Formats: sequence, structure tokens, C-alpha cells
Amino acid sequence: SSNSSTLAAGCSLDQATAPGNLTLCGNATLFNVWRPKARVIGREGWANDNMGIWQRDDGSLHVGWQCNPQHIQWGNISMCAATSTDLVTYTDLNKTLWPSEIYDIRGVFDGTIIKDGFNGKPSILYTSTYPGGPLGATVKEVEGVETQSIAYTEDEGKSWIKLPYTAGGNPVIYDWPMQNLTGFRDPYVFKSPRLAALLGSSSATNITSSSNSSSNSTESDLFATISGGVHGKGAKLFLYRQNETGNVLNWDYISPLLETGVNSSWSEWSGNTGNNFETASANRLNATGDAFDAGDDETAVDFLSFGTENGRDQIHQKHWALWAAVNYTATSNGTVSSEILYAGVTDWGQSYAFVNFPYNGSRQIGIGWTYEGDTTMALAKQQGYQGAFTAMRDVFVKYTPNVDPTDSDLSLKASWGVKNESDGTTTVSTLGQRIIPELLSAWKAAANVSTPNATTLSSDGYQPFEQQPTDRYYVLKGQFDFERNSTGSVGFRVLASDSEYTDILYDPVAQNLTVAREMSSLVNSYDNTTELGKLKLWRTLGSNTTTLNLTVIVDNSVIEVHANDEFALTTRVYPWLSNSTGTGFLSSNVSGSAVKVSNVELWDGLVDAWPERSTNTSTGLVWDGPTAAIYGLWTGI
Amino acid sequence: SSNSSTLAAGCSLDQATAPGNLTLCGNATLFNVWRPKARVIGREGWANDNMGIWQRDDGSLHVGWQCNPQHIQWGNISMCAATSTDLVTYTDLNKTLWPSEIYDIRGVFDGTIIKDGFNGKPSILYTSTYPGGPLGATVKEVEGVETQSIAYTEDEGKSWIKLPYTAGGNPVIYDWPMQNLTGFRDPYVFKSPRLAALLGSSSATNITSSSNSSSNSTESDLFATISGGVHGKGAKLFLYRQNETGNVLNWDYISPLLETGVNSSWSEWSGNTGNNFETASANRLNATGDAFDAGDDETAVDFLSFGTENGRDQIHQKHWALWAAVNYTATSNGTVSSEILYAGVTDWGQSYAFVNFPYNGSRQIGIGWTYEGDTTMALAKQQGYQGAFTAMRDVFVKYTPNVDPTDSDLSLKASWGVKNESDGTTTVSTLGQRIIPELLSAWKAAANVSTPNATTLSSDGYQPFEQQPTDRYYVLKGQFDFERNSTGSVGFRVLASDSEYTDILYDPVAQNLTVAREMSSLVNSYDNTTELGKLKLWRTLGSNTTTLNLTVIVDNSVIEVHANDEFALTTRVYPWLSNSTGTGFLSSNVSGSAVKVSNVELWDGLVDAWPERSTNTSTGLVWDGPTAAIYGLWTGI
Repeated sequence: SSNSSTLAAGCSLDQATAPGNLTLCGNATLFNVWRPKARVIGREGWANDNMGIWQRDDGSLHVGWQCNPQHIQWGNISMCAATSTDLVTYTDLNKTLWPSEIYDIRGVFDGTIIKDGFNGKPSILYTSTYPGGPLGATVKEVEGVETQSIAYTEDEGKSWIKLPYTAGGNPVIYDWPMQNLTGFRDPYVFKSPRLAALLGSSSATNITSSSNSSSNSTESDLFATISGGVHGKGAKLFLYRQNETGNVLNWDYISPLLETGVNSSWSEWSGNTGNNFETASANRLNATGDAFDAGDDETAVDFLSFGTENGRDQIHQKHWALWAAVNYTATSNGTVSSEILYAGVTDWGQSYAFVNFPYNGSRQIGIGWTYEGDTTMALAKQQGYQGAFTAMRDVFVKYTPNVDPTDSDLSLKASWGVKNESDGTTTVSTLGQRIIPELLSAWKAAANVSTPNATTLSSDGYQPFEQQPTDRYYVLKGQFDFERNSTGSVGFRVLASDSEYTDILYDPVAQNLTVAREMSSLVNSYDNTTELGKLKLWRTLGSNTTTLNLTVIVDNSVIEVHANDEFALTTRVYPWLSNSTGTGFLSSNVSGSAVKVSNVELWDGLVDAWPERSTNTSTGLVWDGPTAAIYGLWTGI
Repeated sequence: SSNSSTLAAGCSLDQATAPGNLTLCGNATLFNVWRPKARVIGREGWANDNMGIWQRDDGSLHVGWQCNPQHIQWGNISMCAATSTDLVTYTDLNKTLWPSEIYDIRGVFDGTIIKDGFNGKPSILYTSTYPGGPLGATVKEVEGVETQSIAYTEDEGKSWIKLPYTAGGNPVIYDWPMQNLTGFRDPYVFKSPRLAALLGSSSATNITSSSNSSSNSTESDLFATISGGVHGKGAKLFLYRQNETGNVLNWDYISPLLETGVNSSWSEWSGNTGNNFETASANRLNATGDAFDAGDDETAVDFLSFGTENGRDQIHQKHWALWAAVNYTATSNGTVSSEILYAGVTDWGQSYAFVNFPYNGSRQIGIGWTYEGDTTMALAKQQGYQGAFTAMRDVFVKYTPNVDPTDSDLSLKASWGVKNESDGTTTVSTLGQRIIPELLSAWKAAANVSTPNATTLSSDGYQPFEQQPTDRYYVLKGQFDFERNSTGSVGFRVLASDSEYTDILYDPVAQNLTVAREMSSLVNSYDNTTELGKLKLWRTLGSNTTTLNLTVIVDNSVIEVHANDEFALTTRVYPWLSNSTGTGFLSSNVSGSAVKVSNVELWDGLVDAWPERSTNTSTGLVWDGPTAAIYGLWTGI
């Protein structure tokens, strides 16, 4: 290749043959090998949680994320940002908020936007962190290490002005609501006529004002959750209410909105709550999206979404991305708590930190972070960046009417609610998630669309499509209809060559969707364990079949599997060979229980979300030097 | 008065009568009552050590100092600065360097200038501090809490650019030279052909390079001391050498340049070295000032100047401002150490943090900080600022030739050296200090000068001058000649009315100069203890008299007593009454040992050093809020 002369000795980037020792290659030499193109992703270096997403005055979207440019590990964590007018393509704003004050020098952590904030300007309420003691869910933190601060923008997010470090300035929330916290971060600001109605214009005695408060009159419908936990007690979501409409300085602590025991689990369909919450959202949704009723919309359900720490395996960074449908109960002393109705998993794969944001008045859209599968960071320097984002997803209440009431799973404690309607039918509800139509429309319009014939999968194995993708960027769609009592597992193989492939299969007996990565890559340093998520297919009363509607996004190393407008599993694979691009049907154990597949589409191409970026936006990696270790906060790489 | 209507109830600013309860007065209401005018002083708020003084390309002087605007206590310590073209009047640059990076967020501590620094630009090597553990001479510090960093200026000090936080960037000196340090700060950068000659182009094995070093060839004549100490062992001054001429990143640690035992004292003329050094300077001087010889100037003496911690009383903040004349000795393994020849006190009063800077090629000028006498900060908020600077002083070797060799004090271990000349005479040497001629000339030129007649003080008491000062800004000069064995104490009373006065007396028997403050102020919250400094008057061989040449600067609350071009005592007094301005001779115990006084001058007026400032530059005080206490670094006031 043209740059082979600059490669280090022993480093070969020839993807026509099996990989050599890629650790011999220089920084950012693999920058484009596995880089996804059709999503929010940092220009370079480290990226994790989204933050500061809001729709600007002109309707365009500001998307921020946690970043550490020129480093491939977390550290000096800041906000990088971009804007989009179509939710498909983006323009960089680069790094716009970073540690610079005593209260946030350890890191500018996640925050959300108050659109009419300080002096009416869009303002971010973010977690400001200070190196005064340990921070993290496995330790007892020290009060003051995590506080909440305000920065506002006068140029729609191009730059931010932090409030001064004074009484009546930053931080605006600093007192702990309880002792021995394991976390106190990720403020999620949201409007809630529902909570406002429940709580009334409360002046209840148990409400303790933050010290910036000057009034006990609480009439605002603006609330905030702060995620955390109590050491030895479990995860807790703390509810705050704006003390006075328009005043971003004064927040009253109400009560824990959600509390879960250490490493508790609602069900096998629901993940594990670990010992600390992060990145929570609180949204009242109905079938079309955002519900802003105060309680009179009988189709509306209150959902909490949250990440949990230390309740999962190491491959998933001990993280779960979860949600719960809840019923809020207010007490006479002015607190409010949540009863879980049912609870599920936002995304079963290598993804985390999902947060919802309001869009166009009637929608709530969620987006999360997908971390790399390079668990040991063996090739992180060579890749030159770490982390990307999932596709955006509309979230809503998914109602499945007329479900066969004889299905014994209806009575399970699981990720669905069951309603026996007055007309005698049974309706199942759960959290609905579907890729936003803006992305699907744009991708399909730009793609080379082929439509493999409908068929019946009756023999096991891989059936490549006749028309194959030209590269590693495509969308697959297909409808799989299972007979009652079918035992056949079906799905797609993707990024396939003879030597490398990734297998996506739904097993209707186990009610699991798996993504087998054992053969995904000839590079052996990547995680190759099998991903697994649970998905229930409901049978409509009178029908003999159940249906799986799969949508798979293949965006180079990012595989997103979406099913039935509710299930999501985002994971990472790193095929080496240039020809590991193929796809087709995959089936297993289908003899005697053939599965019909129809409405199959292959959209070859996707859309480059960053048309203004150059091909390789790496600007080199920087080592912070030995003092990074002295400071003990991050490794400095 | 015109602003009386805005005063808080109970607050009276009427200085015609005794003060009421001034603590009832609002912030900055006393801003101008005691404010000195003829010196470097912050616009408002807290100020302490000088820093970053250098002569810019156009010959003007940049003077920086530690500041915390809008606060009356130390905290978030930053550099404020000003410039002067005449060393008399100043123009503000305001705050130019402040905590903003992980390595300096605890505070930007003192630094000195490398004129041809980073990329040839003036660069400050300053102490960058981090809140990772305790900091202060009474504790064992943690490595990394104090490091040394570089910022450079492209606009002659109006703004500064910090080197990036990377390997090969800031901090540039971070490894401790020894374990269990009690301090590691206040880098003093200086050229020393003398040390360079002693050490040679050393590649000695014991020299450990800072990790930025890429070479062992050491040819630069640029050195730096870093002040500190070792817990339980005593104060230490650490010597570093620039590894390569022109490269500000790489400094080799050489050895301790000076080491003193815990709370040791050279003599009663020499103060106490406490347990930790701060704000050291290292200068080779001769009779005219700066000596740049490599060792061939036989009139040159190497001086070290340093502050010490925890070796004095609380009134003086446990601080001494000291100096020592030393003889450097290099060893075969490439280290260098100091033998103390004699040692003295830079300033005996409420002053500290003296640092010397080179000026016009041949001079070294020292300047120090004078803290307030408001020990309990009873009226600190009302004053609205804290701290000012001493007048600048040329430093040099003061030779006193032809001293009577029969004086038994010649053999004392004290603040002087004795040389028996080849012609049989005896010469005494000590550190010379005199107010820079620029100040004296300007003040005299602007003053209403009166010259009280020469007289003989033969009766005890206060003899007011016929022509009295019109305000609290004046200079007194007088020559006092004592007969051999005189027991009379003489001097000046200043800032005197019937009810308030401050008494400056030299006692030739005790060889003490005292400043009695018991009657200085009707406000009883100010320190009123008596200041005391030791001063030896040498008798020239064949003479029957000894001479005290006094110069006293009265600059409102700042009293500077200078004597014989070597002694200095700066202290603070806070007279309340408007008519407490008077001055005259003062004598005690002179009956039978009359003292002649001649060459007396009163310069009434001084010069406003800040012609561009408004009358009251207070912009209000700010409270940092409760998180300041949570962070535990400063009180936030």
C-alpha cells in the first residue's frame, strides 16, 4: 500500500492474508480497518457516554459525548460535540467543555440540558468531579468528589461558560442526600407534569433545599434524577425538583425515586441492578413516544432507564443497560417512590450509558455507547480511537394486542406487562425501541437495495445471498415466521468469508437471540464470546405462528441486532480479511420445523455520517507522562 | 461623610473620635483607611509572595504576586501582575496565571522567570500544585502534590501559555530528590558561572536527570533551587541544573545546596531555620551588586536567601526571612554543598518571602511581602484587601573597612564576616540592603521636604518636629552618633497624636532596634507587640563614636525601618485618628549619654505608585460557598 514504507518493521496491513503480529504496527495504523461510519463517533481517541444532547433553536441537534482526544483510555474526561440537521450526518464542534476549575478538574462527567436555562440560555447540568478521594461504585466516596454544576452557552453549544465558583454559583448541587454514597452523578433533567401533579406545590417538611435555595415554594415541573447508590445497600436514583421555574441554581431533594438491593434482579429478562446506578433517564411514554400528561393518559407508562455497575461479567465491563416500567407513588410527606411493574434490558450487548432526549415535541430518542471488544486493549493504540455510539432509537410503549391468553409466560415476572382488556382480549406492553426513521430512510435511499426471495429455511447451515454486500456497511431485514413448537434457530450470518464470520440466531425454544463471535476474526485478541439476549415472541390469538422481525446493522466493527421493535443487542466484531463481508441466511436444527422467511432486504452501503471529516482524523496519541500515575486518577495513555 | 448613608447600622467611620465597633461596618468600608500607596500592592483581595519578576525587552519591569482577588484569605492562588517603567509607578495587568490544569488546580505557587525560555520566550518556572494529599511543612507531603511547571508569554507577561500536560510538557520537575518532603516549591532560576565552574560540564554518576532529560551533557550555567525540607530532618534547598542550554524542560538534580537541622540557629543575629525553606534566592554579589564572575572576583560572596517555616512566633506567622553568606564546595562525585560563613535576617518584622531579581545587568534587587497585623482577621473584610510589598532594595556585599579590631563582637558567630587585611586593618562584611535609588529620588522630588535642625538628644521623651507631616505618607532620615559606651536609646516617633503613636528606638547597649506598637492604634484587634531586630554599629579604628543612619518609610499602615544600608524591619500599624500623623525625635535614657542627631530630613508626601487606579479598587468580596470547606483546601472567604 501507499503508506507501507512508513510502517514499522514486522507490521503488515495486508488484509488479503491472515494477520501477522499487528501489535508491531504503529499508532493509528489500523484507524480505518474497523471504524464504523454511519453513527456518532469521536474524531479520534477515547469516547464514552453521550451527554448534553438537545435540539437547538433552529431545530438542529447538538450531541455531546465524553471524550479524551489523543488518548485511548479514559482520562481528563471532557465533552466533545457535534451537530446534525437530519440525525444522519454530523458536523464536528470538537471539544467544548473540559476540566478547568477546582470543582471539575478531575473530570467533566455526563450532563443533560436545560433548554431554558441560566438567563434563558441552554445550560448543561453536569457532574463536576474533584480529586479529593476515591470515586467509583466499589468504594465509599467522599462528599464533594462528585457535585453537579452548570455551564451555559450563548452560541448554541459551540462554547460553554461555567458559572463562577462562588456561593450561588457552581457547584449547584453538592450536599449528599444520604451518607456513604457509591456514586452521585449523571444528572438527568426532565419535565414531568406527572410528578408535579403527584407532588403538588409541595412545601412538605422533609424536602431539604440545596443551600442555594431561598424559597420553599416548589411549583416547577422540571425535575432531575442523580444516579448513585449507598455502600452496602444498593443502587439508588435520587429525585430533585427545581425550586423555582427558570432558576437553575436551586434544586430541592425530594427522595429516592428508585432503590434496588445489591445485585438484585427482577427476572432473567431484566438484567441485574448491581450496586450503583449511572446514566439514568426518566420518561413518561405512550404508544407514539413522549407523553406529557399529568396522569390522565391511560396509555402512558412511566419508564426509568439506567445503567448498573458490578452486576455483570467482565466482558460487559460489569455493566447492564436496563429499564423499568414503574408506578410512582407520592406520600403525604412529599416524597415519591417507584413500584416496578416490569423491567427489561435496553441493549444486551457491549453497550451502555443509554440516555433519552426529547425530539420534535412528541418523541423521545435514546442513544447509547458501544465500547470496543478489545478487552485487553491489545490493539487500542493501533486503532487510535475507542468507542462509538449506537444508532438512535425512538422509545415508546409497545402494545401487542390480542395475545393468546393461554401462553403461560404471560404470568412471568419479566419485561412485559399484561392487561386483560374489557373486551376480553389480552394486551401485552413493554418498552418499544426502533431505529429512528430518519436513519432508515437515509440508509435505504443511499443503498444498493437487493431483495432476496422469500424462502423456507429447511436445512441447516449458511445460505449466502446471491447478491452480496460490497463492503462491511449494510443493513439486513427479514421476517421469520415460526410454526407453533418450532425448534429451529434461524437468522443471518454477517461479515462472512470462509475464514471469518459472525452468526446471529434466534432460538424459539430458549427464547434467546445470540450473536456467536467465535469465528468473527482471525485476530485473536478480540473478545469472541457469544452474546445473548432474551426475546419473547407473542402469538396472536387464533394464529399458529410467531414472528421475528429482524433488522441488523452491519457498520464495520459494530453489529446492531434489532428485533420486533423492542429488542436490541449491539456488539463488536473485528474481521481482518478484506473479503469478510458476506451475508446470508443461517439456520440450525430446522429439519422438521422449517421457518419461513420473507420481506428480506439487503441495503448495501450505509451513509457516511461525517462527510466533512478527512479519511483519517487521528492527530496522534499523547502520553501524559509519569505524573498521571502520581495523580492516580487515570493512566495517561 | 458622603457615603455615611450607605453604612450599616452601628458603623461609624468618623476618625475624629475614638473608633466604635468597626466589625459592624460592611465589606471594604475601611478600604482606604490604612492602605499604603507607594508600593506594589494588589488591586483588592488577598496578596502574598512576589513571583515572576523580570525586566522585559523594553527595559520595563514585570512584577507578579500571589493573589486571590475578591477574597481576603489565601486560596485558589494565582498570579496577579503589573508593570513599571521607573520602579516607582505601576500599571495593572491584573490576573494573568491561575489554576486551570490537573497539575496546578490546587494553586499556582511562586515561580521565577527564565528570560530566554521556551522557544526563546520569557517563561515562568512555577510550582504547580494538586490536591492529592496534605501540603505544608508540618506534614509529610505526597509526591506529585507540588511539581514545577512552565508557562511562557508571547506578549511580555500580559498572558501566559502553559505547556501541555503530556510527557515532555508540564510538569517539568515532578520526581522528588528525597523522600518524606515537607515542601518542594518556589523554584528560583539563576545564572551561576560560579557553580558552573565548580561543577564543570559534569557527567557525574550521581546526577539523576528528570525524566524529560535526553542527554547527560550538562553545560548550561542556568541553575534552579527548589525550597523544601525533609520531615524530621530539617530544611533543605535542592539544587538543579538546566540539562541543556535553551531547553527549559530538562533539569538535572545535583544535590542539596543547603541543609539545616530542625529549628537550628546560626546565632541570635540570624533567626531560626525552622523545618522548611521557602522562597529562596541564590546570588553571587559584590560591593556594587550582581557578581557574574566564575570565582575570580575576590570581593564577591555567595549568598543564599530563604524564608523558613515553624521557627518563630505566631505573630510572625512562624516565619523568618533570612540570608546566609556561604562558601560552595564541589565534590568529586559532582555534588555541591554550602558552608555557612555568616548568616543574618533579611527583615525582622512582619514580612516574608523576599526574592531577588536581576536588574540592568549589574544589580540584584530584593522585594518581600508584608502581611497584615490583623492577626485574627477581625477587620479583614472591612479592609477588603490583605497584604502589600516592601519597598525594593538593592542587595550587595556591604564592606565596612578599618573596623576597630579590639571589638570583641568581631569574634562572634553572627551576621558578619571579618577579614584581616594585608595592610593590618580589619574589614567587616555583611549583606547590604538599601532602598533602590529610583524610589528615594522620586519620593524626595515629589515631597515637601523639611530639614529639622541638627541637635543633641539629651532629655528623654518625644520632641515633635516643628514642621509636621500632613498625612500618613512620609520618609524620615536621620544620622544618630553615639559616644562610646552610650546607654541612650534614640529614634523617631511616627504616626503620632496624643492618643496613638509608634516608637522606633535603637538601644546601643542591647544592640537592638525596636518598634513599639502598644500605642499604635485605638483599634484593639491589631497586633501591638513590640518588633525587635538586632543591629551592630561598628566603630572605625580611631573614632570615639558609632553611627546609626536611619531611614523610615511611613506609608500609612506600613512602617519600614532601614538602617546603615543593612538592617531592615518592616511592620504594620493601624492608627485610627485622622490626626495620628505626627513625627519627631524620640529618646530614652539619654541623660548622661547624649546622642547627636544630624542630617535630618522629613519628606512629606510619597508618590502614588498606582496613578491609573481609581480611589477604591475593591470589586466586592465573594464567598466560595460550602464546597470550599468540603474540598478542604481553603476557607473560601
